Amino acid sequence: MNKSSDAHRMEKIVSLCKRRGFIFQSSEIYGGLNGCWDYGPLGVELKRNLKNYWWRIMVHGRDDVVGLDGSILMNRAVWKASGHEDTFTDPMVDCRSCKARLRADQLVEKKGIKQCPNCGGKDLTAPRAFNLMFKTYVGATEDESSITYLRPETAQAIFVQFKNVLEVSRKKLPFGIAQIGKAFRNEINPRNFTFRSREFEQMELEYFCRTEEGMQWLDYWKEERLKFYENIGIARDNLHALTVPDEERAFYSKGTYDIEYDFPFGRQELEGVAYRTDYDLSQHQKASGKSLEYFDEETKQRFIPHVVEPSAGVDRTVLALICEAYSEDEAPDEKGKMETRIVLRFHPRIAPIKCAVFPLLKNKEPLVAKAKEIVAFLRPHMYVFYDETGAIGRRYRRQDEIGTPFSVTVDFETLGEKDPALRDTVTLRDRDSMKQERVPVKDLSSILVSRIS
Amino acid sequence: MNKSSDAHRMEKIVSLCKRRGFIFQSSEIYGGLNGCWDYGPLGVELKRNLKNYWWRIMVHGRDDVVGLDGSILMNRAVWKASGHEDTFTDPMVDCRSCKARLRADQLVEKKGIKQCPNCGGKDLTAPRAFNLMFKTYVGATEDESSITYLRPETAQAIFVQFKNVLEVSRKKLPFGIAQIGKAFRNEINPRNFTFRSREFEQMELEYFCRTEEGMQWLDYWKEERLKFYENIGIARDNLHALTVPDEERAFYSKGTYDIEYDFPFGRQELEGVAYRTDYDLSQHQKASGKSLEYFDEETKQRFIPHVVEPSAGVDRTVLALICEAYSEDEAPDEKGKMETRIVLRFHPRIAPIKCAVFPLLKNKEPLVAKAKEIVAFLRPHMYVFYDETGAIGRRYRRQDEIGTPFSVTVDFETLGEKDPALRDTVTLRDRDSMKQERVPVKDLSSILVSRIS
Repeated sequence: MNKSSDAHRMEKIVSLCKRRGFIFQSSEIYGGLNGCWDYGPLGVELKRNLKNYWWRIMVHGRDDVVGLDGSILMNRAVWKASGHEDTFTDPMVDCRSCKARLRADQLVEKKGIKQCPNCGGKDLTAPRAFNLMFKTYVGATEDESSITYLRPETAQAIFVQFKNVLEVSRKKLPFGIAQIGKAFRNEINPRNFTFRSREFEQMELEYFCRTEEGMQWLDYWKEERLKFYENIGIARDNLHALTVPDEERAFYSKGTYDIEYDFPFGRQELEGVAYRTDYDLSQHQKASGKSLEYFDEETKQRFIPHVVEPSAGVDRTVLALICEAYSEDEAPDEKGKMETRIVLRFHPRIAPIKCAVFPLLKNKEPLVAKAKEIVAFLRPHMYVFYDETGAIGRRYRRQDEIGTPFSVTVDFETLGEKDPALRDTVTLRDRDSMKQERVPVKDLSSILVSRIS
Repeated sequence: MNKSSDAHRMEKIVSLCKRRGFIFQSSEIYGGLNGCWDYGPLGVELKRNLKNYWWRIMVHGRDDVVGLDGSILMNRAVWKASGHEDTFTDPMVDCRSCKARLRADQLVEKKGIKQCPNCGGKDLTAPRAFNLMFKTYVGATEDESSITYLRPETAQAIFVQFKNVLEVSRKKLPFGIAQIGKAFRNEINPRNFTFRSREFEQMELEYFCRTEEGMQWLDYWKEERLKFYENIGIARDNLHALTVPDEERAFYSKGTYDIEYDFPFGRQELEGVAYRTDYDLSQHQKASGKSLEYFDEETKQRFIPHVVEPSAGVDRTVLALICEAYSEDEAPDEKGKMETRIVLRFHPRIAPIKCAVFPLLKNKEPLVAKAKEIVAFLRPHMYVFYDETGAIGRRYRRQDEIGTPFSVTVDFETLGEKDPALRDTVTLRDRDSMKQERVPVKDLSSILVSRIS
């Protein structure tokens, strides 16, 4: 697709997100807060399904990984040791003409002269280092001694608790510690909807291993993570594992892959899989004076393990899922006239609502009662949604637009009023094919459970 | 129990939490950060089970509630309108003798004279208002115009998104918006382990209703919430619904219950169920200039709904679950000698690990293979844990101490080596009764699923 159709597609996605309650601007009634977003009724379900699936695959599904949930506020010493206080900065430039504040790499260059991309001005300040961590004060005084930061990544909580987790979990190398949680970066220019935001959520695994095994685990995790994205419905063709070249990697990393996705606004990173060596644990051991070594019972050696980190952005992945799912096709309306149908083709595993249940008519009490009975019967197994308003075709369209994979309609056949053989059967309609099948109510739960897990 | 045995009990609980990986001090290797805690491998599972059960009951289990996940950083105008910027304060006093910083209500009074509880000093400053919100700066400049706060409660995100959620969800009154998320308060004196911390998580429902129905929904939600705590294993006798007296309620509240629990350190609040009237929506309507009214299609009236708020503390509830579960009894060791057994009697629904699987001996390959096969077979249905080290009695004790309700042992009977009729059966052991039953492997999953849900 070309640039303008991609931009148009993105506009439609953003509009759908707001209109149907996936994502709202934070504090919208007060003009918002740049780089902060709220997940509405459907967005919160999509995000929960993604995070729960990640946890299921990365923690519960494995013998070699345990979880952690660290606090967002940590002792400032963590950020001194990790290097974030000194070096987690972007170079920033001010335009003296239009007062715009710019990341130095966003300046435009014409005939060798740097210009402001806003006004074309050439009167620019020298670049200054701008720290991306949000600062706050803990305790009753606001002074140097009470400073700390909102964590800019979740990883450090794992490194500083490495020894505690090792002791309580009795794990042997290789093993991992997984965490899902919020992180914060005071981005100079948040952009691309929720893609680059100031408040975001990460799903990170720190996988500790022997020194000599780092490179092989790096490749293993790159492949595992690509499979993960395929398993939540992202086509392999839209995913790219970029080998980050030497000069662009963090200085402590011996190898990094960026897993990228083809967003409508360009190919962008979903996840970094980085071989961080023993850098982080070594830094914290030096700064804290506490041993973060591993004792190998076989070789009787003590050493600081190396680590491979698959670090995924929750919000970016949610956005990729929505972009991937968004599609338009042609379908007949109630009167048989063809119209454009918007469909979110979510994998049933991550779709916010798994099944919608409709009585054919809302003013026929037996239909309504039967539909509500089916809701109650499905509810322990999945998130279901009851809707009785509007023509049945419109109700299907509303579910298509939010990606509900299955809809069940209770009609007069269900009540046995036409053909006694069809009593207690319902119409099960598939979102993608729009095909309908007749299914006994008693089999509904097992049919649906097998299709959504 | 008396004070000293309660204090001793609390010490044992705190020690178990650290030793077995429920809760660690945040940034522990750097001396911690007062009022911040990390959840270890078992704590994170317990917390997830609690939050997921709350979501299942409060959102998925109902037609009248939808979810939301708002950002922690919001526009400062939210906190001006809600009153937090001006009035969310504690009066604070400094002791000039020992430099202690104290909440005014923590001073001791002897013969009518206020004294420092630390040093007994009487040279105290006048009380000053200390705002409990953590301040930070958003954007590239640190000045008055870029100030905002970490949210001190999750509720306001729901109020400011009320209109958006109403529109996208097409709900009619009464209906609710639910949210789970972190909030932050710069407590002068964090205390009682994780009970009063600076970073904490809330599970809140704002339930909107007609003006005249507020008091009845208040009572409804008090009862529902009491049931919830019973359903996660807290004995009704240890729960108390306190009617907050007029003079102690927030000025805008027409009625509030505190749901309290008998912690070893005293009776303390788990959840507040507050009838907040139309105060919050009215404040935001006034401050934002945006209508937050509800249009009643039947009466053709427009009005600001009233709201009842059941607001629970995640960390407090996790702590209550651990305190409630902690028990000691006498059980025979491997040699039949009676010893003290520590057991966390968690309700299976919220227990971190649902089932442990053991091969009787780790050096018998067929036992190990069969045990691993059972792990793989149970894993899609629940969080299972494989352990092969130590005598079987010790393995049971380790699971008792972390509250695993069921353990499965694969022995020579399982392999059919003794009695062919017992081939493919295992020992299923119950944590509380310590009774063992012989169960066919093929029935294991359905037996366990029915006992843990």
